[in-house]
Amino acid sequence: MRKVCVVLTARASYGKVKPILQAVKDHPELELQFVCAASAVLDRYGSADKMAEADGFKVDERIYMVLEAETLLTSAKSTGLGVMDFASAFDRLKPDIVLLMADRYEVIAPAIAASYLNIPVAHAQGGEVSGNIDEKVRHAITKLADMHFPSTKLAAEWIVRMGEDPETVFFTGCPSIDIVKEVLKKPELDFDVYKKYGGVGTAPDLSKGYVIVMQHPVTTEYSDVRRQVKETLYALSDYPQAVLWFWPNVDAGGDDVSKEIRSFRELKKPAHMHFFKNMEPQDFLRLLNQSNGIIGNSSAAIRECSYMGVPAVNVGNRQLHRHTGPNVTHATNDRADIRAKADQWLGSKKPSSDMFGEGTAGVQIADHLAKAPLRFAKTLHYVFDR
Amino acid sequence: MRKVCVVLTARASYGKVKPILQAVKDHPELELQFVCAASAVLDRYGSADKMAEADGFKVDERIYMVLEAETLLTSAKSTGLGVMDFASAFDRLKPDIVLLMADRYEVIAPAIAASYLNIPVAHAQGGEVSGNIDEKVRHAITKLADMHFPSTKLAAEWIVRMGEDPETVFFTGCPSIDIVKEVLKKPELDFDVYKKYGGVGTAPDLSKGYVIVMQHPVTTEYSDVRRQVKETLYALSDYPQAVLWFWPNVDAGGDDVSKEIRSFRELKKPAHMHFFKNMEPQDFLRLLNQSNGIIGNSSAAIRECSYMGVPAVNVGNRQLHRHTGPNVTHATNDRADIRAKADQWLGSKKPSSDMFGEGTAGVQIADHLAKAPLRFAKTLHYVFDR
Amino acid sequence: MRKVCVVLTARASYGKVKPILQAVKDHPELELQFVCAASAVLDRYGSADKMAEADGFKVDERIYMVLEAETLLTSAKSTGLGVMDFASAFDRLKPDIVLLMADRYEVIAPAIAASYLNIPVAHAQGGEVSGNIDEKVRHAITKLADMHFPSTKLAAEWIVRMGEDPETVFFTGCPSIDIVKEVLKKPELDFDVYKKYGGVGTAPDLSKGYVIVMQHPVTTEYSDVRRQVKETLYALSDYPQAVLWFWPNVDAGGDDVSKEIRSFRELKKPAHMHFFKNMEPQDFLRLLNQSNGIIGNSSAAIRECSYMGVPAVNVGNRQLHRHTGPNVTHATNDRADIRAKADQWLGSKKPSSDMFGEGTAGVQIADHLAKAPLRFAKTLHYVFDR
Amino acid sequence: MRKVCVVLTARASYGKVKPILQAVKDHPELELQFVCAASAVLDRYGSADKMAEADGFKVDERIYMVLEAETLLTSAKSTGLGVMDFASAFDRLKPDIVLLMADRYEVIAPAIAASYLNIPVAHAQGGEVSGNIDEKVRHAITKLADMHFPSTKLAAEWIVRMGEDPETVFFTGCPSIDIVKEVLKKPELDFDVYKKYGGVGTAPDLSKGYVIVMQHPVTTEYSDVRRQVKETLYALSDYPQAVLWFWPNVDAGGDDVSKEIRSFRELKKPAHMHFFKNMEPQDFLRLLNQSNGIIGNSSAAIRECSYMGVPAVNVGNRQLHRHTGPNVTHATNDRADIRAKADQWLGSKKPSSDMFGEGTAGVQIADHLAKAPLRFAKTLHYVFDR
Repeated sequence: MRKVCVVLTARASYGKVKPILQAVKDHPELELQFVCAASAVLDRYGSADKMAEADGFKVDERIYMVLEAETLLTSAKSTGLGVMDFASAFDRLKPDIVLLMADRYEVIAPAIAASYLNIPVAHAQGGEVSGNIDEKVRHAITKLADMHFPSTKLAAEWIVRMGEDPETVFFTGCPSIDIVKEVLKKPELDFDVYKKYGGVGTAPDLSKGYVIVMQHPVTTEYSDVRRQVKETLYALSDYPQAVLWFWPNVDAGGDDVSKEIRSFRELKKPAHMHFFKNMEPQDFLRLLNQSNGIIGNSSAAIRECSYMGVPAVNVGNRQLHRHTGPNVTHATNDRADIRAKADQWLGSKKPSSDMFGEGTAGVQIADHLAKAPLRFAKTLHYVFDR
Repeated sequence: MRKVCVVLTARASYGKVKPILQAVKDHPELELQFVCAASAVLDRYGSADKMAEADGFKVDERIYMVLEAETLLTSAKSTGLGVMDFASAFDRLKPDIVLLMADRYEVIAPAIAASYLNIPVAHAQGGEVSGNIDEKVRHAITKLADMHFPSTKLAAEWIVRMGEDPETVFFTGCPSIDIVKEVLKKPELDFDVYKKYGGVGTAPDLSKGYVIVMQHPVTTEYSDVRRQVKETLYALSDYPQAVLWFWPNVDAGGDDVSKEIRSFRELKKPAHMHFFKNMEPQDFLRLLNQSNGIIGNSSAAIRECSYMGVPAVNVGNRQLHRHTGPNVTHATNDRADIRAKADQWLGSKKPSSDMFGEGTAGVQIADHLAKAPLRFAKTLHYVFDR
Repeated sequence: MRKVCVVLTARASYGKVKPILQAVKDHPELELQFVCAASAVLDRYGSADKMAEADGFKVDERIYMVLEAETLLTSAKSTGLGVMDFASAFDRLKPDIVLLMADRYEVIAPAIAASYLNIPVAHAQGGEVSGNIDEKVRHAITKLADMHFPSTKLAAEWIVRMGEDPETVFFTGCPSIDIVKEVLKKPELDFDVYKKYGGVGTAPDLSKGYVIVMQHPVTTEYSDVRRQVKETLYALSDYPQAVLWFWPNVDAGGDDVSKEIRSFRELKKPAHMHFFKNMEPQDFLRLLNQSNGIIGNSSAAIRECSYMGVPAVNVGNRQLHRHTGPNVTHATNDRADIRAKADQWLGSKKPSSDMFGEGTAGVQIADHLAKAPLRFAKTLHYVFDR
Repeated sequence: MRKVCVVLTARASYGKVKPILQAVKDHPELELQFVCAASAVLDRYGSADKMAEADGFKVDERIYMVLEAETLLTSAKSTGLGVMDFASAFDRLKPDIVLLMADRYEVIAPAIAASYLNIPVAHAQGGEVSGNIDEKVRHAITKLADMHFPSTKLAAEWIVRMGEDPETVFFTGCPSIDIVKEVLKKPELDFDVYKKYGGVGTAPDLSKGYVIVMQHPVTTEYSDVRRQVKETLYALSDYPQAVLWFWPNVDAGGDDVSKEIRSFRELKKPAHMHFFKNMEPQDFLRLLNQSNGIIGNSSAAIRECSYMGVPAVNVGNRQLHRHTGPNVTHATNDRADIRAKADQWLGSKKPSSDMFGEGTAGVQIADHLAKAPLRFAKTLHYVFDR
């Protein structure tokens, strides 16, 4: 009976972590351990830990590691705190494997903690590319990890190319697609988005079509954060349809985004826009599926939307070089360009793609976690080519 | 005038860091900053910071981050502390580049701190292979680094193969060879090793030939540490020549090594053995150069000794897969095997090799630090092959 | 030339710290060092550090120590972080004296850091009583401190009674009165409070009289925080005058207060109320001085208002047992009682009192800091009675 | 069923904590929780946690918080770490009361952690005086504590005088006397001290009488540590009886003591001296009871020895002002004075005293813990005199 400790550090990752939590919990040869940390335990960021509890997952440890200020300095210091507290948590829980998701800055903390405790690390969503601090973090975690669950075939190929043992790399698809598949069995919007989620702004009528915006600060372009969000806000200031804007996570730069939105709202009082802090994944996916498209730099635009065929305008460098499907077009951080691309690309659905898997990632991952050999020491695989 | 912040975390690294410190200090376009941390500021591990000050380098910050106990847990927690304090230090010093050496567990702390502060990271001695937690740490640092100074051509090749931009990878050789080259200009042993360095044990006569032992605990084989050091001790318990044994650094397992040595000494009272805690690099190199060989798992056996042609018996997995020159043979952690290899391989010099460079690494590194483009964001280079 | 390091940890303390900063800076025998920490460096809490810089004080170090979540657990962990970072800061700054203000939970961090580094600690506003975790913190700091600047004669007496050497206890009055005295030289409200400070809510007309509310969460009554703030909100929901409500500081419970205010506003849409986050001390004092009174549990109601003669209704236990002057009456956390006391007590001025000094505390404190003997070891003074 | 969490932070405290552990464990209305921290979990300091386990106490949490270097700076930083980790531990264990022992620098960490989590703090051995950083720490803990178990009547009186509620102060005697009482039922030395405890130095014959030395570094006289230990060493360098010297705990200054002892041993090779690192409390007490006296600044000389009537020469300021019984005389840190006092005072037993209780402290403390009202908020008791 292997103990698998799944780590969740942000609400934004919950949609990807949930199918794994479920599949590990359901697996007869696995015992689930669950640690929530960073913004996932904070009210201000939507308390993903409570979402998970409501879904029936017991939280074994909560780690409070986010230092206020949301600067580069506090991101670094929070990560250090995380290393310490994850180490203590893993030392208590004694998992056989730690499963980590993706590439947020704080995820390197449990990767280090587990590695240094000689606990095998499994990593989902390695091998991809973007244009952010995430890029460094993602590949560093790959080099700390002992088992890899990439979302695309190309990512799997690249992980091997980076020197990982091919026998430890399993293309499973992205677990976010598992959720999409499940949710689309019943695609109707069965709730009133304003009543259920509050948010700020007027309540534009969604029945005439709407688009969704989700734009995160780009930490390597820190000083430009306010300008970037401003360009997107102004690109859509007289957009002919309703605009539903989703707030960013805790990141260096988060406060700047909030400020820019606030001052835009005060100045423009945009009647067609509404701003949300967070939403349950299923509701968000149904909303997205019914929309005319998504604008911004969110990964949902690339992953979930490729499977659903929702058209996406990807803005700026955050997802630069990301492998994208036929639903995506790109725009620079310029209001005119963003608006032009939105006008020309958004509207009816694009063809669906299975590049991020077929909606079975969770089950496949649990299966590998149960069966793959456990090891925590490794060698750059190039040595075996000689 | 670029500010280059050089980080030193252990006495064992000082021999490699010193040529870089000197070359950066001497470079007209560079300003040297110098941070000492971890065991480099601890008396118990030879106070490398004071060695550096004696050599004329000003220490700008000292970081105390080593938690007592020397277990896997405290190694992890110390690293977390290091991330926090390095972040504060870099935030105060505001370097243009942070230069990191090699792959000790604590070196990932400044790598994360600098990356998260958007400060370019330069890394010396990436791209190599060994068989240890170092292996994970080394390559994770490569993925966090923006500029690479590998010691061998093969390492350079492998860094590029891992997806780094070839224009950021500079084969400079290993700075430890710079020291060897300098020291061998005057190879005589001009000091009495027992008087100058104390240590414990009798004072065997070195004039009839001697060998050197340096064996570190292997952290991924933690439970086997005592057995491994025991095998080497017993392999040499009736060795016909003098044996000079050097104590390990602060690492998970350090205490176990000390205990094993103590009980061996009490039991065997070996008259031909002497145990040292540390030695100035120049003295150590002259001692090594005059020796009949080295036994253990130290990197000096592979690097410095390849240039000097000193025969080496590499024991166990710590340097497994390490690219070695014509001076090295291998033994398992078995007393009979170690003794057999020592008997057959040690003695007269082997041919010298320049695989670790020609003794100009420090100057070359300083030059690249002054001239290479500064950047802190990067992308897996594979995207440019498509 | 003694180096005095003044510590500021919250916007709420700035009004008391400022006269000391100024007097130390102006003193010919003192050199000012200035460390800002905790909520004093956070935007979300009014960036007291930037206020101080605008007033001409150089900030030598900033300490980021507030962990997000604002629970009891994170208050404790933040304090631990503070101890670590204050220790590093004092080790770098090497002050001759550290001056600490009052009793917020995080102030014990620099008290420990300085004590453990053998740096003499001076403490302002010890010896008082309240009914909160502050009570433990305040007296614990007294026992860590080497020099005391109480605000009242009774407090001075009590510090001595607690076993401190009478020669180290100096009644100086409270520095907040220094500010009041200065500000009242020009008492006119020369700004538009809504324009200058924003805030939320309608803009009730102040010309017909107004009252001020300031209510902090009581950390030892944590589970009751929402009810307490609710009682005060409802007590004033149909108050006949304008109500200006000031938001609480970072404390366990802060988020609950915010939520309660939000839901009250949504439900009642109170046209006579306006909510502010913070205000420059001078403006706040002029506003207070012109008001018909203050309600809540703020210390300003007790200190500054006693000197100005502004009537105050002190609510609940936070200031329980606090030595109060003739301007204060008390109410329980009950809406009916609060409203009754407000109706009967607020309105015209009460007699002014000098129990908190005559407005010369800053200069007196600086003088003692320059002249009092420096020592960091002490003994319970009772030993000298025997 | 109240959960009482007992905290142990050093081997030196184990003798006092053990009777409480036992009595709490045995009490029908109490549930024992047990946290070991700081040097109590370190091999290098005698692993008090393992001693406790051998005595049948389950360790619920271990806290690694001691930063290497043993300077004032690392003492402060370790304490900060302790606050963080104790807070997490108490948050998991959710004790109803935390019981703390005495006044070592790190004990303030759990005092803050528990207070800030609104957990009542019980404190044993408050109200005493000494001449050290302990003095600040001890009384600060008293001000953070809600229940007090002083060792002497005078200490009880002084705690009340400091403003604590008399109903929370219980004179129980010192639990160390419980052990003495138990051990003296069978006073024979039934072991060979050299065989059982190793140590360094020759093995002087104890049958002709011996004295014991125990001298801790005085942290407020940090720069004088080496001189002080040197004076005691030289005072006894030709002492006519055997001298058994016990090594100090982890404290700022510990390394200096070790160095001084080492250089004295090398120079003088004192055949009548033997140096121990640690000893089980019972063995130590029997050894002490049979001795001709004790020299140094240990509290055992004052407490346990007063009950046993063992003559003691107390050296220097560490125990300055400490209330002592008829078995103690005092010497300054001067070799001539120490030797003179040893010659004149040591030898036959002095009268026994019950000033530190009658050997029932553990049981009494457990009883109070089970019955006293639980509260975590308090007020300087002076308010009730008015």
